[in-house]
Amino acid sequence: MKQISSILTDFYQLTMLQGYVEHSIDDIAVFEFFVRKLPEKRNFFMAAGLAQVLDYLETLAFTRNDLDYLADDDRFHPDFLRYLANFRFTGDVHAIAEGTIFFPDEPIIRITAPISQAQLIETRVINILQFQTLIASKAARITLAAPEKLLVDFGLRRAHGAEAGLFAARASYLAGFSGTSTVLAGKMYGIPLFGTMAHSFILAHDSETLAFEHFAESHPDNVVLLIDTYDTEKGADKMVALAPRLAKKGIIIKGVRLDSGDMVIHAKKVRRILDRAGLTEVRILTSGNLDEYKLAEFSHADAPIDGFGVGTRMTTSADVPYLDCAYKLVEYAGIARRKRSEGKATWPGRKQVFRSFDPHGRMCGDIITLENDKLTDTPLLQHVMKQGKRITGQPDMKKSREYAFSQLAGLPDYLVQLNKSEKYPVEISKPLIELAQKVDLRNSIEP
Amino acid sequence: MKQISSILTDFYQLTMLQGYVEHSIDDIAVFEFFVRKLPEKRNFFMAAGLAQVLDYLETLAFTRNDLDYLADDDRFHPDFLRYLANFRFTGDVHAIAEGTIFFPDEPIIRITAPISQAQLIETRVINILQFQTLIASKAARITLAAPEKLLVDFGLRRAHGAEAGLFAARASYLAGFSGTSTVLAGKMYGIPLFGTMAHSFILAHDSETLAFEHFAESHPDNVVLLIDTYDTEKGADKMVALAPRLAKKGIIIKGVRLDSGDMVIHAKKVRRILDRAGLTEVRILTSGNLDEYKLAEFSHADAPIDGFGVGTRMTTSADVPYLDCAYKLVEYAGIARRKRSEGKATWPGRKQVFRSFDPHGRMCGDIITLENDKLTDTPLLQHVMKQGKRITGQPDMKKSREYAFSQLAGLPDYLVQLNKSEKYPVEISKPLIELAQKVDLRNSIEP
Repeated sequence: MKQISSILTDFYQLTMLQGYVEHSIDDIAVFEFFVRKLPEKRNFFMAAGLAQVLDYLETLAFTRNDLDYLADDDRFHPDFLRYLANFRFTGDVHAIAEGTIFFPDEPIIRITAPISQAQLIETRVINILQFQTLIASKAARITLAAPEKLLVDFGLRRAHGAEAGLFAARASYLAGFSGTSTVLAGKMYGIPLFGTMAHSFILAHDSETLAFEHFAESHPDNVVLLIDTYDTEKGADKMVALAPRLAKKGIIIKGVRLDSGDMVIHAKKVRRILDRAGLTEVRILTSGNLDEYKLAEFSHADAPIDGFGVGTRMTTSADVPYLDCAYKLVEYAGIARRKRSEGKATWPGRKQVFRSFDPHGRMCGDIITLENDKLTDTPLLQHVMKQGKRITGQPDMKKSREYAFSQLAGLPDYLVQLNKSEKYPVEISKPLIELAQKVDLRNSIEP
Repeated sequence: MKQISSILTDFYQLTMLQGYVEHSIDDIAVFEFFVRKLPEKRNFFMAAGLAQVLDYLETLAFTRNDLDYLADDDRFHPDFLRYLANFRFTGDVHAIAEGTIFFPDEPIIRITAPISQAQLIETRVINILQFQTLIASKAARITLAAPEKLLVDFGLRRAHGAEAGLFAARASYLAGFSGTSTVLAGKMYGIPLFGTMAHSFILAHDSETLAFEHFAESHPDNVVLLIDTYDTEKGADKMVALAPRLAKKGIIIKGVRLDSGDMVIHAKKVRRILDRAGLTEVRILTSGNLDEYKLAEFSHADAPIDGFGVGTRMTTSADVPYLDCAYKLVEYAGIARRKRSEGKATWPGRKQVFRSFDPHGRMCGDIITLENDKLTDTPLLQHVMKQGKRITGQPDMKKSREYAFSQLAGLPDYLVQLNKSEKYPVEISKPLIELAQKVDLRNSIEP
């Protein structure tokens, strides 16, 4: 999992690369990645995935095995394959920190490298940043909708493959979740692991009570029982009846999980059953088709639910399953560039984003301008990799998480709501507009 | 990529497993995977992912490294970790072939194994089958909407991580696409690779014509030029002007690609420009926000487009980004089981699906019944793995693809349309209904 294959890329990256190599086109190119627009159901984005991009760039190399595969394709020339054998990424990276709130057109990463390198990496860089940012942005909404609750990622099974499950665990943890059920994500990213039992554990026993008892004995310090297999309230009754027997063995039931039916009604009934039995410390957890809208509903209905296992809808960002994003050449050989394709024009040149804050520390407006335009507000892009080596060391997950938390706390109130809000002010600077005009003028007289 | 980590699973699989091991609960369990219901925008599903499930089951083992990670978690006991060190999958698998059309409640895989094994694999089995089936089902609709066209997967960059891109390339190829742009998918699954150039290749040159020329010289046998960087029709004019110069060097332009603007209008204009210049053999390819609805529109508008690069909306199945599916215990220790959770009740027992066909070979109705109910129609589930070893060898991608093609050809007309169709008849057999009643009766008298 650590080193991803260098041929995890689009075929056209290699065909273009061969074109560059054969015509000795290898000046410094500058590419920037940004999101074109806010989906209808998002008010902001949260940046995520930079750590994996830097891992990828540091280890990028073509294996013998990959080169042998390419050699079987007569569209590639032997000289080009010899070139690939020595391929490394030696460029610079500027980026905004993971966990930063950002908006359309604001570059979140800038790659400065010989065009061969900056081009080849496009596919995987987008593949990492698009998805993790998508999930962090979704998970941030869930965190905002249930600020005092325990939130755990349950999404692996319906994630789009293995890496989607791992990345979603990471991005949701960054955005304020407390942990994940994905064991490998715990190992890879140091995320706390949560989990209870499935219906099959109950079904494999001849009695629900016996299943509860077996589970409790095997996990005396972590007893959370799933009580909806046959009938939720009857399940709660059985658990209440079992509690004194377990208490004699020194086992305390920590929680119950509900996974079906009307959660508000069941949670209220179960809470009453537990409280009447004096089990006021037993927490109620729920799962099943949850997202920020459901959580807001539960909060509105005063459902006595303490924690949520959030899966499919977060892990796939089901209401917005992709971002309209791009990785675009903004400068080549010292000259600013942009394409003019209809509806897809982009801002040219190396850019910086400056953010200003109100006296309470809340973000109140951004300006996108050229890198060399020195403003006094806070610049978001930082130099994070120089000549292929990390400047700052591996970003620390815990610190990134605290930073993301402070970003959410610094949102203006109107951005916190789940519905479409008024637009956050993002200004395009005068120098940037002038540069775009200059580039277009040059293109219009191109032979 | 070959051997996926055995801790790519939910934490609760391991906590349950410890419960089973400590209480010596290890009778034979039977689990089945099925989809609960058809999403609003689907009329059928196409099964995909079995090959990766069998790979996973054959290689499943806990590495020293994974066990060391688990040992740091005091929720796991040393005896249990020693048990895991010897863990292998030794069960049986019955499944419907990849490429088969199927419907809700029909099991597409059945796992028969000691419950410890059958339980642990749940997460990854769903993770593989859900996603590949999701994409094959989406890609099949795209194939049906553009039956005579060249269709190529362009989705990796916006896929949900690396494996999503690889699996989507595979599932769309299975469902009738001609190839993919993802190089690693070509290597892993033997899928033909397609690709041209990006806008950045044009932008890195001072003139569009020079960029075309450089690309053509480096890829004389595969010249497809992207002509919309500045102005689509002017791009076509430049390409026409360049064609005779390239022809003198023996280079034939095979196609042009359009990636922005109104594709119908541009394709018609470009076709006229090409035809007037006698370049009637040059094909027009397009890409950008394509899906089955767009392709049907193009077909309706008689757009002269020969091929499509289909990316994001297919790769993420954007209109239906997940399936409501489940992997459920249907029998344990020889006794049929089912949970009764509200809205989530499932059919108990080992099942088989029989399909009948009309005289033209079109599927005309299914019956879901118990495995031992011997009907004369065609059974869909086959025995594919015995005691942890494949019976049938690695399924051949080419044959699976031909089979999928024949499945699409065998769809009744009403299922082919993109809109919601009438329901395909799927009957639940009398023996199965009776078994469910028997199971519920037993549960209702459970102590």
